[in-house]
Amino acid sequence: MKELSFFFDFSSPFAYLASTQVEAVAARAGATVRYRPFLLGALFKALGGPDVPLFAMPPTKQRHARDDMFRWADFHGVPLKFPSRFPINTVKSLRMILQLDEASRAPLLHALFHAAWVDDRDLNDDAVLIDIAASVGLDGAALVAGTKNDAVKAQLKAATDEAVKLGLFGAPTFMVGDLLFWGQDRLAFVEKALHGWRPRGE
Amino acid sequence: MKELSFFFDFSSPFAYLASTQVEAVAARAGATVRYRPFLLGALFKALGGPDVPLFAMPPTKQRHARDDMFRWADFHGVPLKFPSRFPINTVKSLRMILQLDEASRAPLLHALFHAAWVDDRDLNDDAVLIDIAASVGLDGAALVAGTKNDAVKAQLKAATDEAVKLGLFGAPTFMVGDLLFWGQDRLAFVEKALHGWRPRGE
Repeated sequence: MKELSFFFDFSSPFAYLASTQVEAVAARAGATVRYRPFLLGALFKALGGPDVPLFAMPPTKQRHARDDMFRWADFHGVPLKFPSRFPINTVKSLRMILQLDEASRAPLLHALFHAAWVDDRDLNDDAVLIDIAASVGLDGAALVAGTKNDAVKAQLKAATDEAVKLGLFGAPTFMVGDLLFWGQDRLAFVEKALHGWRPRGE
Repeated sequence: MKELSFFFDFSSPFAYLASTQVEAVAARAGATVRYRPFLLGALFKALGGPDVPLFAMPPTKQRHARDDMFRWADFHGVPLKFPSRFPINTVKSLRMILQLDEASRAPLLHALFHAAWVDDRDLNDDAVLIDIAASVGLDGAALVAGTKNDAVKAQLKAATDEAVKLGLFGAPTFMVGDLLFWGQDRLAFVEKALHGWRPRGE
């Protein structure tokens, strides 16, 4: 079975946009999506860059990046609202996802992305997180309690270390075999790769 | 007549990639391309960023950017060879373009991009520049002599100041009406805009 690894953090609007498309891309290629959360801020820190690259951009580039995310939302036909809190603290929400088997992560993942990037809900608020989990039939209280579990904390740390080791530098990132693609604007490349494309190298 | 402004510097591989596609994009929309050279390094300096953003990226991101340009070349079916000299000094080649009417810039533009990004020729060498101009039927000696003309120098300075004023922060950049699009990876958006798309804003 072909696999498409989808590396994401709920903190990224472009990861949200990717989340609205990635299953259709995989389905058209008969591939399975592997949902791989990691902590984007920790990756940035490991790479020595700014904590929030958006804020480090020149004002004109920052403006364009914001226009760009809304253009993509329009292009895909999906809703998007820039949240009133940004950057978003996503540690708890990522730890919730990690407590689920990869094969059962999708519903909670979509509910969390939607809460953050459409409904402007606070992913750092336990009551909100419990409610979101309940909305997809999960035991939110147990999952939120689990975010304080040392093994779960270590799991997020390990997932982020793995992202660094694999050569990630942003989110979303996709891997098809050993090909790494950064950005939801490369989903057309991802899809070609799932269909067997091996792009010419340097 | 619809117009598509194409802002470029020969120093950018992604501007080269754009140059291989921009006329087809415009033609499909019945639009005219306006070829607008500017000095990318001076724009970066004006914005206070690094002179060569590629070199300022974390190694993994730099590696991906290089893979990405070759993936796009493969995707478009066009040749690309990373030049032995980089960054490229493009001041003279840009000043040559500026001496031509906008409507007659395309042949020399394509010859210069091809020389830099396919044939690894030195755009800072007068003999090379004369030869490239001659290859498209122009008087290369006169154009190279013109690069030392104060009015031509001022024209490149003004073009770059205008790029800053318009809110550019990189190359290639496209404008359709007042919509600005950065990157050859946004040509699909450019084409939609030429066909009347007004993307939803924030």
